[in-house]
Amino acid sequence: MTPGSGEVVMASSYPVPPETAYMKAAWRAFDRAIQAAGRILLSTHENPDGDGVGSQLAFCEHLKALDRECRILNCTAVPTIYEFLDSHGWLEIYDPKRDEEWLAACDLAVVFDLGDFRRLKAVGRDLLRHKVVLASIDHHHQSGFEELGGEPPYKYFMLDYSAPSTATLVWQYLNAYRSEPLTLTMAEALYTALITDTGSFRYDNTDERAHLMAIDLIKAGVKPYRVHRRVYEQRERSQVRLLGVLTNNLQYSGDGRIGWCALTQDMLARADATQKDVDGFSDFIRTIKDVEVAVLLTEVDGDKTKVSLRSKGTLAINDVAVKLGGGGHPFASGAFVPRPWQEVIETIRPLLEEKVKTMDAVGEGSNNGG
Amino acid sequence: MTPGSGEVVMASSYPVPPETAYMKAAWRAFDRAIQAAGRILLSTHENPDGDGVGSQLAFCEHLKALDRECRILNCTAVPTIYEFLDSHGWLEIYDPKRDEEWLAACDLAVVFDLGDFRRLKAVGRDLLRHKVVLASIDHHHQSGFEELGGEPPYKYFMLDYSAPSTATLVWQYLNAYRSEPLTLTMAEALYTALITDTGSFRYDNTDERAHLMAIDLIKAGVKPYRVHRRVYEQRERSQVRLLGVLTNNLQYSGDGRIGWCALTQDMLARADATQKDVDGFSDFIRTIKDVEVAVLLTEVDGDKTKVSLRSKGTLAINDVAVKLGGGGHPFASGAFVPRPWQEVIETIRPLLEEKVKTMDAVGEGSNNGG
Repeated sequence: MTPGSGEVVMASSYPVPPETAYMKAAWRAFDRAIQAAGRILLSTHENPDGDGVGSQLAFCEHLKALDRECRILNCTAVPTIYEFLDSHGWLEIYDPKRDEEWLAACDLAVVFDLGDFRRLKAVGRDLLRHKVVLASIDHHHQSGFEELGGEPPYKYFMLDYSAPSTATLVWQYLNAYRSEPLTLTMAEALYTALITDTGSFRYDNTDERAHLMAIDLIKAGVKPYRVHRRVYEQRERSQVRLLGVLTNNLQYSGDGRIGWCALTQDMLARADATQKDVDGFSDFIRTIKDVEVAVLLTEVDGDKTKVSLRSKGTLAINDVAVKLGGGGHPFASGAFVPRPWQEVIETIRPLLEEKVKTMDAVGEGSNNGG
Repeated sequence: MTPGSGEVVMASSYPVPPETAYMKAAWRAFDRAIQAAGRILLSTHENPDGDGVGSQLAFCEHLKALDRECRILNCTAVPTIYEFLDSHGWLEIYDPKRDEEWLAACDLAVVFDLGDFRRLKAVGRDLLRHKVVLASIDHHHQSGFEELGGEPPYKYFMLDYSAPSTATLVWQYLNAYRSEPLTLTMAEALYTALITDTGSFRYDNTDERAHLMAIDLIKAGVKPYRVHRRVYEQRERSQVRLLGVLTNNLQYSGDGRIGWCALTQDMLARADATQKDVDGFSDFIRTIKDVEVAVLLTEVDGDKTKVSLRSKGTLAINDVAVKLGGGGHPFASGAFVPRPWQEVIETIRPLLEEKVKTMDAVGEGSNNGG
């Protein structure tokens, strides 16, 4: 089964190790499609992360150097911390009124880091409507194909679950098919993607390939701290104030193995903070000594609650998120619950307390990143 | 000039790139000394860090496997976060009454990551007194030889300023001279050293060698997150409370490019916190958006002040530390000042405000780690 033959490879035939004959053939067919295409659209999932954005920007620069007519159209805005990567202003938010005609005439659309097809939102809807040929470069489990008869809609499907980031696959493609060396802006975009998806080489998806990629990007001119400080040292003052509120309202249970906090709308208002400032706070609670499970409850619209769960890696906690109607990774999951936070914590605290009691009987876990 | 010839190589003849003939000869001579020695002492600087401790423990395991009589004797205790590396209980604090006789009969002492010879304290004094043959493995600038006539006292001197960590040099030695593969405990010790000295591959001392070393250690079985959570996710509750105090007392000046905070003894007492909990707080202030220079003042004994200065990398700030009688790296420095914090901030604030005014005229800097 070769890509480009008109057949679609099912997600169930994966995972594929990086250097399989399938992947080699997939890249070759994809490259032929790139060479043949005049107009190419690039996109990624809603609320793009560093991996999606970095992959797009590096790929876009590559295509523009090849004189392709190329645009990046995402369904939602990119977080401001990644704007430093976009010195040319290439990141656009898809506006059907303005862009649908342009989209309809694309020879190819490449989607990065997508996972769930539905997360393309209006971009995905219009690409399908206009039958644009689709390519996907990804390292996530695949879903969201129910309305497409369960079949991924990609003609070119470069999927490698074992890759530490989608940008790693883009890097491999560019290394193999690009005649020029990587520019510094491409290398910084790919490096940003790599560090944000591996937690700065911290999660267990950090493998040989992740470090080899880092070496190559450093050789292309990346200064690690220059990128890190732009991505990680941009904390808003409102977030700092809210962190103070968090530290004053932290609660412990289960012999200190559970750390939890509820942030109410009133607290956010008093810190002049927004939902966005809450990002990373559950990871912060997890950094506390003895805390194995961190829970952050954020009040949304009065009687709804956003729940974020983190585990230090010994206990999986996504089953609790699933019970609340959410989901995620074993050690990083969450849910959005239409109930007040007081009810939510009363529901999950006993479950988590039972869980941490089993600690001594369980081996050590890991953290596979996102 | 070859090591082992009785000559001592002056620090001024450095830096030496890693694969110079000098370094190769130095390692060869050092290895012969290891082979010939029966009793070997290992030490590092006072208040050991991850690099010193990780290097010692990996090297100690190597020597014990060679049936050498080997002890690790440091002048001060190792931070508790590194205790997980010491499953055999090899880390000891030097007690002259108990240990001097043992020390005096050593064939060789290897000091790791030392920099300033005086930071060996009583261990250094007694090694010199008993004329024990000394070897140094280090990547720091060398100092503290004034009382030794300005000459480093090392017969074997493996100094490489360009190495991302001392453990990188230990790893290179073990790769070249050890017949067995690295064990997991050795690999975890070396990995801990590497991530603590490179800021998890964040500082600009993170080079090709750092990432190659990481690959090798991951191949030896290291699970990155297992180590990271043991080193970085061990925050004391007292530190969390103190962080709340910090966020409530943060001040900004110089158009928000200076972020500063004074922590008084009263504040520490109310948070039930100690000086130790302040560690890393100046780095935290630096993570705030627009803050280029972070200043943390900690009140010590009423009218003394510990000053910690951090820069995001555009402005060097160690000249300010020097003015206060301290020193350090361009972007991470500090001082201990026998004056109340109110006087200290009044002294340095105008200097820093002048400095940040020059921002737009200056290029971008880097961060070379520690």
